[in-house]
Amino acid sequence: MRYELFYWPSIQGRGEFVRLALEQAGAEYIDVAREPEAAGMGVPALMRWLEETPIACPPFAPPFLKAGDQIIGQTANILLFLGARHDLAPADEAGRLWTHQLQLTLADLVAEIHATHHPIASGLYYADQKPAARRRAAHFRKERLPAFLGYFERVLERNPHGGDHLAGNTLTYADLSLFQVMTGLRYAFPRAMARLKRAHPLLGALTGRVAALPRISAYLASKRRLPFNQQGIFRHYPELDDPPARKARRKSK
Amino acid sequence: MRYELFYWPSIQGRGEFVRLALEQAGAEYIDVAREPEAAGMGVPALMRWLEETPIACPPFAPPFLKAGDQIIGQTANILLFLGARHDLAPADEAGRLWTHQLQLTLADLVAEIHATHHPIASGLYYADQKPAARRRAAHFRKERLPAFLGYFERVLERNPHGGDHLAGNTLTYADLSLFQVMTGLRYAFPRAMARLKRAHPLLGALTGRVAALPRISAYLASKRRLPFNQQGIFRHYPELDDPPARKARRKSK
Repeated sequence: MRYELFYWPSIQGRGEFVRLALEQAGAEYIDVAREPEAAGMGVPALMRWLEETPIACPPFAPPFLKAGDQIIGQTANILLFLGARHDLAPADEAGRLWTHQLQLTLADLVAEIHATHHPIASGLYYADQKPAARRRAAHFRKERLPAFLGYFERVLERNPHGGDHLAGNTLTYADLSLFQVMTGLRYAFPRAMARLKRAHPLLGALTGRVAALPRISAYLASKRRLPFNQQGIFRHYPELDDPPARKARRKSK
Repeated sequence: MRYELFYWPSIQGRGEFVRLALEQAGAEYIDVAREPEAAGMGVPALMRWLEETPIACPPFAPPFLKAGDQIIGQTANILLFLGARHDLAPADEAGRLWTHQLQLTLADLVAEIHATHHPIASGLYYADQKPAARRRAAHFRKERLPAFLGYFERVLERNPHGGDHLAGNTLTYADLSLFQVMTGLRYAFPRAMARLKRAHPLLGALTGRVAALPRISAYLASKRRLPFNQQGIFRHYPELDDPPARKARRKSK
């Protein structure tokens, strides 16, 4: 069966967490909104499912995944579905719930990252909420980012199977999502992430290992991987990052 | 087995979604942080699990549920667990995923409701972020609240089993959570909810039916149900609600 992924075609966004799982699974899928409208796809196909087709289980927003007759929405829920089917989650119930719990905590972090540049409304431009964004981003960098990174580092430290994976002793979709979050954070907040790097060695190592997985590295090098940009969740606005380090003053005498 | 629920003792908050499921299930549970410290419970017991005990699967934040040796965090994940055990979710996989998808969409709505009074940082007082809160709340009432309520009304309209429940033909934890969200919204935004009432008759009817369930109505009348207050997710700040309707001017001549 070929999956159909429905997500906005120009950003990584929340769809990227699903793309990474599909890629690592080696699953056959089509990224519908990035295919030509002439072939009945593109954004109009996404909008048809989202707004016109009276399906019994409608998604509230992209991403959603069509798997045969089933349409599944909500990023973490799609990963719950794919994880069980493609060996990207533990087989036992406790392990599956734990992996999902980690994914939902990553989703909370992603929402807080998005709110750094859109604290007032998603529907407004960044330019229309800049003062609030500066305040929100400062709190995020100071309080929330260290709290979340510290938490996930602790999860790796405490994993009874060793610190190579978040849950259990094999790769899960939560590891893939952690890679995406870490990579996005480095793009958006390079100075804050440099400051926090040494305190989170296991997170850095896991991010590197995921990037080096054969299927993931092939995907990252392909045209299927969209670049980070200023429309997605992770945006690089230097004014929202840590202030630049002051250069040591050296006056020529 | 007696469940142990860990959540802040003075607010409904996210813990309330779990309390409602436990109550409707008729499950034996103890609300740990509301029990006396002298008995080894209270908030210190919560903090011990959250910060001191080096458990392998630590929760990031309350609520979390102890079920035997298992500690489960993230509200929607706890409900996924309880739903399967207490007949509060469909038995088939597609139905379970659909119910969970609805719960995650309710969680998104809950996060947006919280952000109306805390757009800058959860760690700051409301008083320190009032201008941003006014802007955020105005967008929420105008754009997001109607979008979410319209969505859930549509879900009820399209349910092939009739509009009595969100998923399938029996009560699920998503119905209980919808009740909580609707009740909280009416407390926080009475004017906006009055304005939107007529467009969402199925949501209103479902909310009433859940309130009338014998176990839920007994719970709501008990001391176990905390009242809404100004520390929780749903807060009544009149300045964040619709402006009061202007009275028709009648000048005495």
